[in-house]
Amino acid sequence: MKNRETDILIIGAGPAGMVAAMTAIQSNPTKQVIVIKPYEKSQVPCGIPYVFGNTLGTVEKNAMPCGSGPIADKIQKIIDTVQSVDIENKTITALNHTIKFDKLIFATGSIPFVHKNFQDGLELENVFTIDKEYHKVEELKNYLEEREKVIVIGDGFIGVEMATELASVGKEVTLIGGRHILGFSFDEDMAIEAEEIMRDLGVKLALGEHAKHIIRKDKMATGIELCDGTFFETDVIILATGYQPNTALAKDAGLKLTGYDGIWVDEFMRTRNKDIFAVGDCSGRRDFITRDSSKVMLASTSAAEARVAGGSLYKIKHLKGFDGTIAIFSTMIGNRAFASAGVTEKRATDENIDYVSGFAQGMNRHPATIPDASKQSVKLIAMRESGRIIGGQVIGDKEAGEIINIIGLAIESKLTIHSLISLQVATQPLLTAAPTTYPIVLAAQNILKITH
Amino acid sequence: MKNRETDILIIGAGPAGMVAAMTAIQSNPTKQVIVIKPYEKSQVPCGIPYVFGNTLGTVEKNAMPCGSGPIADKIQKIIDTVQSVDIENKTITALNHTIKFDKLIFATGSIPFVHKNFQDGLELENVFTIDKEYHKVEELKNYLEEREKVIVIGDGFIGVEMATELASVGKEVTLIGGRHILGFSFDEDMAIEAEEIMRDLGVKLALGEHAKHIIRKDKMATGIELCDGTFFETDVIILATGYQPNTALAKDAGLKLTGYDGIWVDEFMRTRNKDIFAVGDCSGRRDFITRDSSKVMLASTSAAEARVAGGSLYKIKHLKGFDGTIAIFSTMIGNRAFASAGVTEKRATDENIDYVSGFAQGMNRHPATIPDASKQSVKLIAMRESGRIIGGQVIGDKEAGEIINIIGLAIESKLTIHSLISLQVATQPLLTAAPTTYPIVLAAQNILKITH
Repeated sequence: MKNRETDILIIGAGPAGMVAAMTAIQSNPTKQVIVIKPYEKSQVPCGIPYVFGNTLGTVEKNAMPCGSGPIADKIQKIIDTVQSVDIENKTITALNHTIKFDKLIFATGSIPFVHKNFQDGLELENVFTIDKEYHKVEELKNYLEEREKVIVIGDGFIGVEMATELASVGKEVTLIGGRHILGFSFDEDMAIEAEEIMRDLGVKLALGEHAKHIIRKDKMATGIELCDGTFFETDVIILATGYQPNTALAKDAGLKLTGYDGIWVDEFMRTRNKDIFAVGDCSGRRDFITRDSSKVMLASTSAAEARVAGGSLYKIKHLKGFDGTIAIFSTMIGNRAFASAGVTEKRATDENIDYVSGFAQGMNRHPATIPDASKQSVKLIAMRESGRIIGGQVIGDKEAGEIINIIGLAIESKLTIHSLISLQVATQPLLTAAPTTYPIVLAAQNILKITH
Repeated sequence: MKNRETDILIIGAGPAGMVAAMTAIQSNPTKQVIVIKPYEKSQVPCGIPYVFGNTLGTVEKNAMPCGSGPIADKIQKIIDTVQSVDIENKTITALNHTIKFDKLIFATGSIPFVHKNFQDGLELENVFTIDKEYHKVEELKNYLEEREKVIVIGDGFIGVEMATELASVGKEVTLIGGRHILGFSFDEDMAIEAEEIMRDLGVKLALGEHAKHIIRKDKMATGIELCDGTFFETDVIILATGYQPNTALAKDAGLKLTGYDGIWVDEFMRTRNKDIFAVGDCSGRRDFITRDSSKVMLASTSAAEARVAGGSLYKIKHLKGFDGTIAIFSTMIGNRAFASAGVTEKRATDENIDYVSGFAQGMNRHPATIPDASKQSVKLIAMRESGRIIGGQVIGDKEAGEIINIIGLAIESKLTIHSLISLQVATQPLLTAAPTTYPIVLAAQNILKITH
């Protein structure tokens, strides 16, 4: 057992842990920072689906870079598994280390969530969750190598990406999901476009009927039965049914959990103990619009939280904390990008928000005769009376991945459609829509038409 | 001579005129809108350079769409050349029409600016400006067909785009410009990357020495002599030396001109006469940061002004007018996109602004092993004390064309780097930089490091 001491200790080295470490050093150059993590190698979390198709093709290609340069080099890394946290004595105990700290950041991430209907399947040889640990990804990759039929349960973006990547290398893939895929992030009108592409890519979609249970024979699953009795035979089942905060350690240490069992934090990512922070998927998240508990888990959001925490360890000094997740994300299905931020129309209805929406569709180049021009669609959602922008959805070519970030900035800055109708944008024939029909502006104009 | 009457009359049908017409109808559905323009066919202004290479290849492919749908169909178009505007009697006189109006919008655009050193060249057969009229573009295209050596004078984006497109179809092109190309929009560190690509594409760059005059023989230019005596022989000279507001008509009508001879307007694009508006390149522009007169001419800015005017014809009702140009633009050189908004470091120095800048470079996909990953660079410029963002420059793949629009929104919304360091962005392996190294955030963090 080695005894160590440090100024700042971070448990976990995912995106949240690493960004917290980097920011802590940048903000406190004289302090010592230790990151403790259970395994040497990590995977880029969002890159995992691409290990299974030809996009990356190997687990090795998705290795998370450790970072280099003067700041990254100052982070001390310890490979060990933390067993307990003693808040009063400011000490953690791992298998082979005890470490005293002044400031502690929990960045313990999330673990797969498995619905109770499927938990008995976890003991079977051919039922998998998508675990973010390096060797578990490798294990699944190897197991799939010689199997043909795969069922993916879950219509979130991980499920969708896994299904399309597996189909791209010839697997016979069935995705079982809700009424529409990506239903949390897209309204029906946008989601059906994604579904069409998935079907074209050879993914069989079984939507609208819940999976009832796993059918087994000895130590193997043979298929899935839906609530309406439909049976799908399979060689492998992948449960892409979400993640839950990994907070057993924090709970045992006596920290308050909240909402979906994330660690309770204030806007500067502090727990009730001002020396202890939590960032990333293990933190208790609030929604940006309603401030209700949020289940959204995104590496980009984790990074933003980590930057707030890393800069607030010794004093709150930034103008702005982390004021709730705007649930901003993007993905690629076939050769189309789908991106969403804030609330959908469906969620606005569920949340009893008096909203209006505006839609615009055009080409992503101008004139439309530019060789790689393709369609681009933008939907904006705003509060009816104030015009405050609270959501957006984009479908387009790869640039849609950044267009959503324009909408995200508008949401986060609480701008209204009035700011967008005369928005100054750069437009260029080879790069963007026409100045006359820039879709964010047109969508905002269409909202204005409704409200006036 | 036909006599007509209308509620709203718009002179000019470029991007500004057409957007003003569309917005006027949307905002005032019961009013009649007439657009008067001298020619039937128009070109997409920003698409003109691409007519000369293989990107579009023909003038026809760059035809400006007239717009269709219920709103566009309500616009009445008259092909005629306006001769005079009688403000007192609210009537214009064209060659074949007189039209009485209630509200008038000048959208007369801009005409090529030619430096006095070259004005004598305009009478020569092989010296051209880049005029936006359809038949003039066609004329230049035809003339170039059988010529080999071309000199482009001007290092702005039109000059750069013309030079690269002409080189791409085998012309021997020399571009004569200032110390660095695109010097108005990019600092030296960014511009040299553009210059390297241009040289790789076969464009000869003659930078840092002004062109003194055109050398002629009879009715033909034979070359250009620089101030240091260097001589460049050529078959054709293209003057891409900027544009000036086309305001002779407005001046004759007695309207006040300002700055670089644009029509003076307030923030809602109104001239001193509240029934007469001016939008687009013919309007007198102010800079967003300093409110000094601005020479910047961009179709996207014109469209924003036109939206403000079209919505403000009968009553000022929007929360926000047009509060100065942020000079936001993008272009593509080879397979790299270059984009800029707000002030450069150079201009900040010239304007005596106490600024700081932050730079970040990374990959536009994550992990970097994603097949189409390439480098992405972002520079942000902020006021030192307040952290207010006043400029940004981006180099990357095509998505850079939208990344600049995130920065543009930050500039226009007067956000500070504090908003950006914890910015929530969508990141995705196939679409964007990593959540841990998103370049706008890192550039903002690097500014914070300097100022704290």
